[in-house]
Amino acid sequence: MGDGLNIKEQFDIAVIGCGPAGLSAAINGTIRKKKVGIFGTDFCSPKLHHAPHIDNYLGLHNMTGEELRKRFLDHVKAMGLGIIENKITGVYPEEGGFMLQSRDTFYKASAVILATGVSAVKPINQELDYLGRGVSYCATCDGPLYKGKKVIVLAYNREGLEEANFLAEIASEVLLVSQIKEKEAQGITLDEKIKVIQGKPVGITGDMWATGVALEGQNLTADGVFIIRDSVLPDQLVPGLNVSNTGIVVDRSGATNIPGVFAAGDCTGAPYQLSKATGEGQVAALSAVKYLDELKNKAGDTKKELAAI
Amino acid sequence: MGDGLNIKEQFDIAVIGCGPAGLSAAINGTIRKKKVGIFGTDFCSPKLHHAPHIDNYLGLHNMTGEELRKRFLDHVKAMGLGIIENKITGVYPEEGGFMLQSRDTFYKASAVILATGVSAVKPINQELDYLGRGVSYCATCDGPLYKGKKVIVLAYNREGLEEANFLAEIASEVLLVSQIKEKEAQGITLDEKIKVIQGKPVGITGDMWATGVALEGQNLTADGVFIIRDSVLPDQLVPGLNVSNTGIVVDRSGATNIPGVFAAGDCTGAPYQLSKATGEGQVAALSAVKYLDELKNKAGDTKKELAAI
Repeated sequence: MGDGLNIKEQFDIAVIGCGPAGLSAAINGTIRKKKVGIFGTDFCSPKLHHAPHIDNYLGLHNMTGEELRKRFLDHVKAMGLGIIENKITGVYPEEGGFMLQSRDTFYKASAVILATGVSAVKPINQELDYLGRGVSYCATCDGPLYKGKKVIVLAYNREGLEEANFLAEIASEVLLVSQIKEKEAQGITLDEKIKVIQGKPVGITGDMWATGVALEGQNLTADGVFIIRDSVLPDQLVPGLNVSNTGIVVDRSGATNIPGVFAAGDCTGAPYQLSKATGEGQVAALSAVKYLDELKNKAGDTKKELAAI
Repeated sequence: MGDGLNIKEQFDIAVIGCGPAGLSAAINGTIRKKKVGIFGTDFCSPKLHHAPHIDNYLGLHNMTGEELRKRFLDHVKAMGLGIIENKITGVYPEEGGFMLQSRDTFYKASAVILATGVSAVKPINQELDYLGRGVSYCATCDGPLYKGKKVIVLAYNREGLEEANFLAEIASEVLLVSQIKEKEAQGITLDEKIKVIQGKPVGITGDMWATGVALEGQNLTADGVFIIRDSVLPDQLVPGLNVSNTGIVVDRSGATNIPGVFAAGDCTGAPYQLSKATGEGQVAALSAVKYLDELKNKAGDTKKELAAI
């Protein structure tokens, strides 16, 4: 991870995602006197925003999704919490907790709750096979590895175009395969070095290391591939996380296979429902609080033992 | 169970309990077009009613428990559902579903969701050892077994006094050990045959069959013991139900060890929290719906198979 990291803020609990599960986790952690950071992209739960009519969230009858979304955000704001609009791209264990990376900014947290929602995006063929071996999701993080080399950028959002521009400063050659509509790209001028290729990516190619992208009807080759999209797959976010084909594997307390990492809401699997999400958010937060308290007690015991020597 | 039962009503899903978990289950089952019956005692969630301040139910900030309780009941009413104020004392599997007993009234349901809350009452010593062997919770059901015999009634509520009166018409002798306050007993005149004993029950005594009750400082003997309290323990409600010392054992779908029986809320264990309860109610309802649909498909297949013969 390198030295001299810019640690922007430190939390007891970092909640990744600001849909219903994440917000429920955040208010519950806060009520239990933990310092909670909520990380989310701009809008928090576009899925909820688009729901025309919701009737099964007990106590709030006959609502639009947008009304609920606003109420949920108001609740969180009323408790003094804000949303940190930085996309977390990696969660790495370290002494006494976790380091969270958002491009070149880092945060620390003693426990992490994943509430990343269900990903509408499926990884493309072989994408996951090349994680850490030529496939990257963060130009700021991994760009320097490709100094003077050739890279492919698969862009599924505006950020992808910006990342391509950033890579153009480092790499010798940048092939950009953009999947976004023209109007979404407005206001971004691409670096002259970038070569724009039309096509739909269908798979990553390579042997031990990713060396290209298969489009429908054409194959591109390069030294590395950057994939930039809104949703980060959970096992790409947290290396080593146990994920089944239905979602992140958790027990009834919301615990994942990694101590200190909990999960809640759609990312743990169906049913993709509001009450299920808020309930799991609450349970994950209380489990995280318990985990932190036990950690503290253990640290206290060690201190006592050392004092007794 | 006897023949010629008075079946009052038949449901797709019977929800036992009308706290947050039960009500959330009920609205979700109803939205999925199932006929849902909610069984509850008079007030629905006295626990919620007594909560002075609730801040962690996402979307409804800074509420009293009573405000939430009213909102929850309003939601259920707005969806055309009512609470059936009959206490269910037994759930018995039968062809294609379950028979639910409430004194001398019976209901049928194809699936059952237990949302009975956490029992504040702990069973007294050896009580559970004598289930079906001299310890009973329903005078109407089991009273006739004690015609001309001697019974002990442990009454923890007004109903216990009424049951003692009922038993006095059948049994030769009734010993009543009442644990309720005098003012709660107002308006009930006890049958002359009933002998009131002061004391706190600490255990059931007997050998193969319950033959008495140990009070602090004195032992009572009889042919059978009736224990009448508000809460029915889950494994006494549903014979064979898998219960651990933390609550009813369920998987993440809310399924218990008995096919067709699901559970949600405080009765499945800690944390005893609102969102956890409503979330589990929703999940249990959707699991019950899935169970019913699969049952229907299976029945359809059998019909097809039979038609093909």
